[in-house]
Amino acid sequence: MATAPDRARVVQLFRELQDGITSGLAELGRDPFEEEEWERPGGGGGRSRLLAEAGGGATFERAGVNFAEVHGELSEAAAQGMPGSGRAFYATGVSVVVHPRNPYVPTVHANFRFFEKGDAWWFGGGSDLTPSYLFEEDVRHFHGTFKAACDRHGLEHYPAFKAGCDEYFSIAHRKERRGVGGIFFDYLRGDAEARFGMVQDLGRAFLPAYLPIFERRRNTPYGERERSWQLLRRGRYVEFNLVYDRGTLFGLRTDGRVESILMSLPPLARWETVPDPEPASDEGKLLEVLRVPREWV
Amino acid sequence: MATAPDRARVVQLFRELQDGITSGLAELGRDPFEEEEWERPGGGGGRSRLLAEAGGGATFERAGVNFAEVHGELSEAAAQGMPGSGRAFYATGVSVVVHPRNPYVPTVHANFRFFEKGDAWWFGGGSDLTPSYLFEEDVRHFHGTFKAACDRHGLEHYPAFKAGCDEYFSIAHRKERRGVGGIFFDYLRGDAEARFGMVQDLGRAFLPAYLPIFERRRNTPYGERERSWQLLRRGRYVEFNLVYDRGTLFGLRTDGRVESILMSLPPLARWETVPDPEPASDEGKLLEVLRVPREWV
Repeated sequence: MATAPDRARVVQLFRELQDGITSGLAELGRDPFEEEEWERPGGGGGRSRLLAEAGGGATFERAGVNFAEVHGELSEAAAQGMPGSGRAFYATGVSVVVHPRNPYVPTVHANFRFFEKGDAWWFGGGSDLTPSYLFEEDVRHFHGTFKAACDRHGLEHYPAFKAGCDEYFSIAHRKERRGVGGIFFDYLRGDAEARFGMVQDLGRAFLPAYLPIFERRRNTPYGERERSWQLLRRGRYVEFNLVYDRGTLFGLRTDGRVESILMSLPPLARWETVPDPEPASDEGKLLEVLRVPREWV
Repeated sequence: MATAPDRARVVQLFRELQDGITSGLAELGRDPFEEEEWERPGGGGGRSRLLAEAGGGATFERAGVNFAEVHGELSEAAAQGMPGSGRAFYATGVSVVVHPRNPYVPTVHANFRFFEKGDAWWFGGGSDLTPSYLFEEDVRHFHGTFKAACDRHGLEHYPAFKAGCDEYFSIAHRKERRGVGGIFFDYLRGDAEARFGMVQDLGRAFLPAYLPIFERRRNTPYGERERSWQLLRRGRYVEFNLVYDRGTLFGLRTDGRVESILMSLPPLARWETVPDPEPASDEGKLLEVLRVPREWV
C-alpha cells in the first residue's frame, strides 16, 4: 500500500478551502455567514458556515460551507462496500452548496474528501453546476476551469471525471441529469503527493470556476415564470439528493448530523406535473442538455 | 393456498372507492378534478383524478385519487422480497392524497391494494393523517372511525394496524413519525371473503374519517407563521416519501409512471434549519406526538 497522505496536511487544506470559499461567497453579497462548531458523538466534529438569515438573503437563498473531520467505527454493512480492512475509519472533507436567489444564477455544489479505512486511503469529490437556464458560455467556463486544473496532473483525468459526474448525478426515474455536470471522482489512490496536489488544485479551482458565472448573471431581471421554473428544478434537486445521493443516504442511515447532511437541500422546492416546456423555449433548452449530456470543452 | 379473491370484484371495489372519494373531496371545494387514463408499457394501466389547477385551488393545494390495475413480470430483485413463486404479478389499487391549503387542515393519505404473485395473494394498505397542528379530537375521530371499521372484523386488527402505521411512517433520521398515524397493513391473507369484506369496510371508512376534520378546520384563520410551519412539515413529508416509502422507491426504481408515483408529494416544501419550537407552543405540541406516538382510542 502506498504511503498515505499526511492527515494534518489534508485537514489544513480543507480548512483553507473552507475559509477561502466562504470569503469568496461572502464578498458576493452582504448576506452574513454564521459559524457553528459541532461534535460527532461517535468521534470528531466539524465547523459549518451557513448563511445566517432564515429564508435566505438577497443574494443567496441558501449557502453553506462545511468542514468536518470524523473518525470511529463503520457499521458492518457500510464497511463491506469499501476498500480497506476492518471497520475503523477516518474521514475529513469540505463541502459547499449555493442556491442563489436569482433563477439565472446556477446552483453549485462541491465536495472534497479524504477517507482512510484500515490500510486503505483515498480521495473523492468534485464539483457540479445546476442551472435553471442554460448559458453555454457559463457551462464551458465551469468545465474549462476544472479541466485546466485536472490537465496539470495528466490529460486522462478530466474526461474520466467529467463522465463520472454525468453518470453519478443522474435522476434515473426522470431520465435527466441533475445539472450540466462538472467533475466527480472517488477512490482516487496512488501516489500520495501527486493525489494531494491534484485535489488541492481542484479545490482552488472552485471559486474561479463559479464566481465569474455568478457575477455575469446576478443582475438579470426575472419574474414569476423564471421563479416558478427555478422552484420546479429545485424539486428535482431534492429528488436526486434524497433518492440517489450516496453521501446523503449514508449519512441519514448512519445517524449522521441531519442539519449538515441536508444543508444541500434548497430552502423551497415545488412539485407540479406540467407538460414539458417547448423545445425552443429557454426552459426546453436546459431540459435538452439534462437529457443528453454534452461535451463542453 | 386459500382461494384468491375474485379480481373483477376487487377492481370494482377500488373503482367505486375512487369514484366515491373523488366525489366526496370535490364537494368540499369548487376546485375541479381532471381525469386522465394512462397505460403501462409493461401491461395494464390506470385512471388518475387530479386537482386540475396548477399550483392548486382555493381548498386544496394538491389532491389526487388514483386507480391502477397492472400486471407483468417483476424483476428478479423485486420478486425475491415477496411471497409467491415466479415473477409474474398482478396488482390493483386505489390511492389518495390530499394536501389542503389551510395549515389547520391535516394532509391525509390512503391506499388500498391487492397483489397476486404466483399462487400467493394479499391485500395491503391503510390510511394515515399528517397534521401541521394537533387537535386531539381530530386524531381521536380519525383513529376511532378506522378502529370501528376494523373491529367489525375482529378486535385484533386495529391494535396491530395502528402499531404497523406508527412503525412504517417513521422518519428515522429525524426521530419523528410522518404524522399521527392511523392504520397500515400488508400481506393480509387468509379467508378471501373475510379479507375482502374488511378492506371494503376500511376503504368506505375513509371519507367518514376525514371529511368531518376537514369541515371543522377549513375556515380557521391563519397567517405567515402557520403557512411557514406547514411548508416545513411538508418538507418532512417529502423526506419520508423519497427516503423511506417502499412504494415510492419501488416505483421509481422499476421505471414506474413518475407522475403517479410522485403525486403524493406536496406542491411546495421548505427546508430550513430552525430551532425546535417551544414545547408549549402549538408547533411544539405536534412535534411531541410525532416523537412519541400515543394511543388515541
